[in-house]
Amino acid sequence: MSRIAIVFGLFVHCSLAYEDDYLAAHLKEKISMLQDEVSMSLGGRMRLTNAEMQANDTLMYWKHKEIDDAFIDLRSFELYKHYFQYKNGIENSNVYKIIRHMPKGAALHVHGSALMDADYFMNLTYHDDLYVCSWEGNMRFRFSYDIPDKPCPTVWQPMAEVRKASVDVAAFDRSLRSRFTLYTDEENELEADINTVWNRFEDVYGHMSQMLRCRPIRERYIYDALKKFYDENVMYLELRNGLHPLYELDGSEHDSMYTARLYQKVVDRFTQTYPDFVGVKFIYTTNRAKNVTQIRKAIETAKRLKTEMPDLFAGFDLVGQEDLGNSLTEFLPVLAAARNELDYFFHAGETNWSGTASDENLFDAVLLGAKRIGHGYALLKHPTLMEKVKRDNIAIEVNLVSNTVLSLVRDVRNHPLAAFLAQDLPVVLSSDDPGVWESDSLSHDFYVAFMGVASRRADLRMLKQLAVNSIHYSAMSGLQKIRALATFNIKWDHFINVFMKSFPKGIV
Amino acid sequence: MSRIAIVFGLFVHCSLAYEDDYLAAHLKEKISMLQDEVSMSLGGRMRLTNAEMQANDTLMYWKHKEIDDAFIDLRSFELYKHYFQYKNGIENSNVYKIIRHMPKGAALHVHGSALMDADYFMNLTYHDDLYVCSWEGNMRFRFSYDIPDKPCPTVWQPMAEVRKASVDVAAFDRSLRSRFTLYTDEENELEADINTVWNRFEDVYGHMSQMLRCRPIRERYIYDALKKFYDENVMYLELRNGLHPLYELDGSEHDSMYTARLYQKVVDRFTQTYPDFVGVKFIYTTNRAKNVTQIRKAIETAKRLKTEMPDLFAGFDLVGQEDLGNSLTEFLPVLAAARNELDYFFHAGETNWSGTASDENLFDAVLLGAKRIGHGYALLKHPTLMEKVKRDNIAIEVNLVSNTVLSLVRDVRNHPLAAFLAQDLPVVLSSDDPGVWESDSLSHDFYVAFMGVASRRADLRMLKQLAVNSIHYSAMSGLQKIRALATFNIKWDHFINVFMKSFPKGIV
Ligand SMILES: [Zn+2]
Ligand SMILES: [Zn+2]
Repeated sequence: MSRIAIVFGLFVHCSLAYEDDYLAAHLKEKISMLQDEVSMSLGGRMRLTNAEMQANDTLMYWKHKEIDDAFIDLRSFELYKHYFQYKNGIENSNVYKIIRHMPKGAALHVHGSALMDADYFMNLTYHDDLYVCSWEGNMRFRFSYDIPDKPCPTVWQPMAEVRKASVDVAAFDRSLRSRFTLYTDEENELEADINTVWNRFEDVYGHMSQMLRCRPIRERYIYDALKKFYDENVMYLELRNGLHPLYELDGSEHDSMYTARLYQKVVDRFTQTYPDFVGVKFIYTTNRAKNVTQIRKAIETAKRLKTEMPDLFAGFDLVGQEDLGNSLTEFLPVLAAARNELDYFFHAGETNWSGTASDENLFDAVLLGAKRIGHGYALLKHPTLMEKVKRDNIAIEVNLVSNTVLSLVRDVRNHPLAAFLAQDLPVVLSSDDPGVWESDSLSHDFYVAFMGVASRRADLRMLKQLAVNSIHYSAMSGLQKIRALATFNIKWDHFINVFMKSFPKGIV
Repeated sequence: MSRIAIVFGLFVHCSLAYEDDYLAAHLKEKISMLQDEVSMSLGGRMRLTNAEMQANDTLMYWKHKEIDDAFIDLRSFELYKHYFQYKNGIENSNVYKIIRHMPKGAALHVHGSALMDADYFMNLTYHDDLYVCSWEGNMRFRFSYDIPDKPCPTVWQPMAEVRKASVDVAAFDRSLRSRFTLYTDEENELEADINTVWNRFEDVYGHMSQMLRCRPIRERYIYDALKKFYDENVMYLELRNGLHPLYELDGSEHDSMYTARLYQKVVDRFTQTYPDFVGVKFIYTTNRAKNVTQIRKAIETAKRLKTEMPDLFAGFDLVGQEDLGNSLTEFLPVLAAARNELDYFFHAGETNWSGTASDENLFDAVLLGAKRIGHGYALLKHPTLMEKVKRDNIAIEVNLVSNTVLSLVRDVRNHPLAAFLAQDLPVVLSSDDPGVWESDSLSHDFYVAFMGVASRRADLRMLKQLAVNSIHYSAMSGLQKIRALATFNIKWDHFINVFMKSFPKGIV
């Protein structure tokens, strides 16, 4: 029986049978407070159509079933564990099946080289023209018609030959695959501390990034990545990306603006084939470990990109582990000087260290006028800042799976998103580096948010509002947003009236 | 270098060298926001005397040293792990040494049978008159001059004989000891889910409680427990306790009111010896797993206790795992009927399950007029309720170590206390069942709160306010509180002017 039913049931029971004024008042007040809470929460004031209400009933039947079974017997609920311990079981959930098909709007916080998973990269390692340079456990990759004319502490060898020469090809591939993923089923590795995990993360990201420096590989990758998001009903992306120069298989090299134009070209091709995909914008990023001179140079590149490709360009950000990298304060003069020319989308407060430089990046990000904040994990510890973020409509890009994999939180029910949702902060959900942990493009993040973080009472309204938020808080122009919302609404109606109509309703 | 120094340094640097109005304004605003945060936080508006400021400098020197070393190199910081992984290292910390000596006021949320640790209970197992009944891995204990005349599925045997007959006495004692503690250094046991941990917890608590049914044992235990808290500069306790009837070694039995009078007798004896210990009150508890009839009976017992021992009696509460036990709603008519006669101190929201009956105990507790709330862990997910708790001065009894050991949260930096402190909610720190996890009586909880949860900027003012809160939100009468505060101030002055004056200051 639903808990709401218990409350309402008691209410009727008591007011009739006991005629006790206090009890009636108590229960009335409790229900009213619970209702206030819902209408205060993200999506809580949305009105649903009749068709949406029916879809919501189906969704909530499955949600309540999954949660209530688990509330008594934890064996059927694993979201309190490390993501790697339940990720392969998610697909059994009916709630997940609904969420996967639900139009989710946009993914606004994803890093360009981490969109595809280890299987994809392993496929690339079977490419005829891949060379590898191995030394002391390290590997460098290069696609080339001939032996690469690039530094190597040992020698460049064709990957195919190295693989063939290995004693055990399956073991070789398992080891190679581990360079392209953080995923592990070794329980003891799940306990790694944040610095250890970040080291491994940077290795994996580095290997992925290297594989994507070759123009034809990258061109294909961009298309495949868009398709992967599109297949999960994501219609728009903002990619955080550096602009590494690309090379051809014959060794010739392009400049970094070429990379940007290549993105635009592939996106245009993709949207011609899938006209309900509305596009991609670019948040140009550089690593926060760099020095002031390098940051100044990156800002100049960002300005150039903005001038040359105003529709593709969205803004600027710094990436890399916040705790160990430079804080925004250290680049303040440079960042301040460009604040009227560039929109900022800073990673800030992706930390558990309260009252430190990484924690206080939140202040600088907000004061520098950031349009959105990446993670904002520490925001909950700064109530005045939280007020300001809400008042000024600075969206918080929450990346749940990322935060668990990168060791900020284990049991997601302790993630600050729960409080953000309760207070209707301007939240968007994203997936950060889904390829690195082999998650869905966006569906897993939505699933974990809905089932693990939000209240048991949160329903279709919250999910729809999160999708609408992702369009609303994007860097699209006003006109682009209007068009994107129109497209979203068509997709949403189809989801409600076709997919949900035929979805098993369960036995109530 | 301290991060504040960086900010102030940059401020001076920029305003002199760059003459950039924006930068000056940015940094001024950042500092002002940071100052606002501090003065908004728990203790942040307190004025310190000169002597206190000097003590604070010493405290903060050590705090910053420990945190800043760890910020770069996690090996020196372990508070993000399970409590059992760092508990034995805490005593090396200078901050801990200060906190242990600091007057901490009262412990307002501790359960009567769980105040002493496994070593204490192991000592009791060497008592000449202890009998044991063993069956299928279970053990029942009874102190008695003769073979106990009590049910036993096998036979009662003198513990001394069972021990002597064991193949390996050390192994026997290790196994016996494990019945009196949750502590383990087996890493894989630290991953147990909340229901598994609660099962083990109830076993341990049950064994402790059984050992304390014998009058002379209990009498000695009460005194020893008071001394243990007193040695950590805790001056007042509110004990949550059932009133199990006690027996003598000759088998004769007392009624449950005798137990209450015994407490009063021992407390009186203790305060005669230690006049700066101000006393104990009793929160009568019963298990939430019981049925309505049993709860009604418990409420009658509470009323009788209140009538017969008005100074000892503080109020009423329900105990046991909230998720799996009955919710307050289920006892609402009974609890509502007694609400004007009894003060309530309900456990509520000790859960990670948002939107469930255990989560929503918070609403019933507040609506029933609870004077304080035990744990209130889920409060952060209910912003309106949080407002009400603050406005109505309903103290939240936070038990940090308990929440980590009982599997609500792993990395304490994700504990909601961080947000409670930032918003100056009426918080008191307590230790729940320190004996069960072999923690200090209260010092570990203060240490973890100060070093693991509060901001790096939080200082002596927060610690002192937490101590003052514990007196302010106690169930003492107005006059008792005034006297307690006077005693506290004397102890505090001694701490500042004697202990802190001679504490190593560190090299700045
Ligand atoms: Zn990111
Ligand atoms: Zn408790």
